[in-house]
Amino acid sequence: MNKNNTTPQRGRPAKSGRDSSQTKQALVQSGVQYFTEFGFASSGIDQILKKVSVPKGSFYHYFASKEAFGIAVIEEYSHYFAKKLDLHLLNETNKPLMRIVNFANDAKEGMARYNFKRGCLIGNLEQEVGLLPESHRLQLLDTFAVWQQKMTCCLQLAQQENTIPASLDCTALASFFWMGWEGSIAKSKLTKNLTPIDTFIDVFLQLIAK
Amino acid sequence: MNKNNTTPQRGRPAKSGRDSSQTKQALVQSGVQYFTEFGFASSGIDQILKKVSVPKGSFYHYFASKEAFGIAVIEEYSHYFAKKLDLHLLNETNKPLMRIVNFANDAKEGMARYNFKRGCLIGNLEQEVGLLPESHRLQLLDTFAVWQQKMTCCLQLAQQENTIPASLDCTALASFFWMGWEGSIAKSKLTKNLTPIDTFIDVFLQLIAK
Repeated sequence: MNKNNTTPQRGRPAKSGRDSSQTKQALVQSGVQYFTEFGFASSGIDQILKKVSVPKGSFYHYFASKEAFGIAVIEEYSHYFAKKLDLHLLNETNKPLMRIVNFANDAKEGMARYNFKRGCLIGNLEQEVGLLPESHRLQLLDTFAVWQQKMTCCLQLAQQENTIPASLDCTALASFFWMGWEGSIAKSKLTKNLTPIDTFIDVFLQLIAK
Repeated sequence: MNKNNTTPQRGRPAKSGRDSSQTKQALVQSGVQYFTEFGFASSGIDQILKKVSVPKGSFYHYFASKEAFGIAVIEEYSHYFAKKLDLHLLNETNKPLMRIVNFANDAKEGMARYNFKRGCLIGNLEQEVGLLPESHRLQLLDTFAVWQQKMTCCLQLAQQENTIPASLDCTALASFFWMGWEGSIAKSKLTKNLTPIDTFIDVFLQLIAK
């Protein structure tokens, strides 16, 4: 994170109406917001603390280190995203490929809601992996592995329903999907519109359709 | 760029065996290296100057502003990459799809040579676009437009040779290619191996093959 900020000191927790676990959770949520918009290197710990009215001095009451904080933030986002994926990809009222479309539509709404300023926390951190602790790199790999597994299952269902060719390797295709997905989210931040995500999803579905 | 660094002051150019234009070019090359490894926000102007033994005081002798420097760096990389693309995609001794494979192999060599630390300067800056001047955002868009045009022509050639289906929109497919490409470069930095790029190229070629 931004080295420009004063290193937080060990101290007492903030006095507020929140209890300790609520404040810890609020800090993690604040971290998720900053990392999703600015990535790791440019997110200042001071801003993250200020956003939830926690004085600098009490950071280490909640987290043993900045690395421990980063781990908690990535874990929070990974958990949130996995739930979102399950919501769509396991929805048995829809055909498998429509579930992918619905997931993309959900993500598109999120991009537009934050005016194309917030992307994907995992994609942001992936891009600056050279600046991250090794623990974060391993966490990002684990997160992608979970997403890939979920997408593989959905594509295998489509294959069982004979919607996509049996010749396709669904594991490789799922890996391919997430690389293109991250690329399309980054491009949407650049163009400030949804065209890249639409192009990605449209072409992907066209290419895999039987 | 990293605000942690002292703002360079206007002053006299460095005394060295280089003339002014050589020093300016060396600074741009140094910028390309740092931006390709660390992106914009985490690249310190001090490091960039130090790398080519230029004293802090003379930065503004070469560039009117940090923004002007960024523009020169992006321009340099875009120019270098466009030449690399032409080298492969216009090579008439190879079939169109083989030209794409050769481009990917060339890029893979570069990734491995720098131990997966350097990615794509354009992809790095795209990811942190919220922190960049508007001039840089427009430059990144222009760069992608040039790459997309070059890839579109190559795919159209493949279409003319009946290697890929006539039903494919080569412009959309080229846009799709670059999104996946950037995603695969980022993923390779994360995994520290070439598997993501190989998966991306293999699946892409499999999906578009007739």
